[in-house]
Amino acid sequence: MKKFMNDAGAILTQSLDGFATAHADILTLGGDHKFIRRKALRPGKVALLSGGGSGHEPLHAGFVGHGMLDAACPGQVFTSPTPDQILEAAVEVDTGAGVLLIVKNYEGDVMNFEMAAEMASGPIARVLTNDDVAVENSTYTTGRRGVAGTLVVEKIAGAAAEAGMGLEALKALGDTVNGATRSMGVALTSCTVPAAGKPTFDIGPDEMEFGVGIHGEPGRRRDRLRPADAIAEEICEAIAKDFGDISGKRALLFVNGFGATPAMELYLMYGAARKLFESRGVSVVRSLVGSYVTSLDMAGCSVTLSLLDDQALKYWDAPVHTAGLRWGM
Amino acid sequence: MKKFMNDAGAILTQSLDGFATAHADILTLGGDHKFIRRKALRPGKVALLSGGGSGHEPLHAGFVGHGMLDAACPGQVFTSPTPDQILEAAVEVDTGAGVLLIVKNYEGDVMNFEMAAEMASGPIARVLTNDDVAVENSTYTTGRRGVAGTLVVEKIAGAAAEAGMGLEALKALGDTVNGATRSMGVALTSCTVPAAGKPTFDIGPDEMEFGVGIHGEPGRRRDRLRPADAIAEEICEAIAKDFGDISGKRALLFVNGFGATPAMELYLMYGAARKLFESRGVSVVRSLVGSYVTSLDMAGCSVTLSLLDDQALKYWDAPVHTAGLRWGM
Repeated sequence: MKKFMNDAGAILTQSLDGFATAHADILTLGGDHKFIRRKALRPGKVALLSGGGSGHEPLHAGFVGHGMLDAACPGQVFTSPTPDQILEAAVEVDTGAGVLLIVKNYEGDVMNFEMAAEMASGPIARVLTNDDVAVENSTYTTGRRGVAGTLVVEKIAGAAAEAGMGLEALKALGDTVNGATRSMGVALTSCTVPAAGKPTFDIGPDEMEFGVGIHGEPGRRRDRLRPADAIAEEICEAIAKDFGDISGKRALLFVNGFGATPAMELYLMYGAARKLFESRGVSVVRSLVGSYVTSLDMAGCSVTLSLLDDQALKYWDAPVHTAGLRWGM
Repeated sequence: MKKFMNDAGAILTQSLDGFATAHADILTLGGDHKFIRRKALRPGKVALLSGGGSGHEPLHAGFVGHGMLDAACPGQVFTSPTPDQILEAAVEVDTGAGVLLIVKNYEGDVMNFEMAAEMASGPIARVLTNDDVAVENSTYTTGRRGVAGTLVVEKIAGAAAEAGMGLEALKALGDTVNGATRSMGVALTSCTVPAAGKPTFDIGPDEMEFGVGIHGEPGRRRDRLRPADAIAEEICEAIAKDFGDISGKRALLFVNGFGATPAMELYLMYGAARKLFESRGVSVVRSLVGSYVTSLDMAGCSVTLSLLDDQALKYWDAPVHTAGLRWGM
């Protein structure tokens, strides 16, 4: 294992310390590294709270700030944050209008966010993201996994909350965006969890894991590495088939790197995926390309297609100022 | 070699096609993939033109747009753009106020930009970046290499050009910023050039290349991988020593990933480097952490310290809207 770290037990807290120092203008770190919260809370705004196992940066701490999340709870690497962490963050950021939890569909996350919600005294609602079309009921999940599409839900709900939308409407919006979003990923290498010290799974020098999860969970199958166009075709076909009829729809196309795949390859995949969706009648009106929902040092990428109506488009375009996503301010 | 590509000969052009499509709102691709230019040129503004071998994305094409470059010429991977490419881009973006070339100090780049400058008819000036303190006279370079500090020069000169600064003053400003900027990097793995199909250099499972160049050029020495704090200490010491007295200075601290190093590790290195510079009396007033000047799929990072006066600070903060760097708009 080759990582920039001092010891595996301290990698998360030392990284969070650096992160909080680098972005001290927009966020602050809670005690005992329990959460990252937006520096300037807006009284009367519904608070958006997310979190999950660490190792997916910039998700979620990198999306704390104006126009997106009010707080994020970082669990240990690939481990859910505790109910205690989540509750403390919820209390911290609730300014009276309630808290919307945005939770990726993993059993640990679902359980711990639910326990925190039960202990909370104020109004609280939850959006569960499950955009991964690759598999049902995998290693850590009942149903579908929540992956890169979570960013889209956090951005759009974040902008709506900023614009003054109430808790119930935000939950409905978040559910709608999640329902209009599909993703699938491919790994070329495994990630390595610092505490484990060795790759999560073995993969041959000419193999890929098709439909991989963001913790290295198995996908649909192991296959020989194929040309980018063939990989893109299979991903786009799986997403299009799952949507049903997408012809004539407007969409955000998001190609996401898993951590160790450089921009040159991501843009090549973006170009391939865009042509394939356009050939199916989709109008790609917004784009995002980069490593936003990662899996530590895994080489690979995912493709997300999110169908956007006028309202979602307006919220996607709204100003955002976080460590990981920034425009309009 | 595991990359998302169709064939090694087409990886660059297919990636550029995807890039230009994803960012069609701000830039356009020149014929034969010779350059990427800003979509809306501003008549009367000095044009900023950079470029170099591909494989360092988002540098340089990702820095084309408002407040930074007017055009970038992508050479083949790790290969200088041709004089013909550079000349064509210069003619395309010169709206009458002249062209400032920003060139990283590699022999091929220096020669080809110089040949283009000789053939150009309008006023033209050049800033040569050479911020890498690791070594003198390495594989492709006489003197010091131009590395991640080039981003700082492009950002600050770009904002100054946007504000109406003339060609001569821009050259002086670029030279000043370059002179106030120092970098050094460490590789944990080699990069793999697509056309070569195998790693550029061999490195053991417990080794690092200290002072590596962004094409995998040898650094100061091969060493056993050490804890992050020890690596940061040696880099910061080399940079501080090269500067001479930095106590009391205000600086931008930029921790740059080489392509395959995830955010968690970069932020840990940022935290370590910041403490070390602060202990030497530096006041870190601006920060940048991410993979901006890469070396294909190399795991590793560099640290850049750039001393900023009030004017440089103002230009660093000025709005920028490019694919790779964006704020204030």
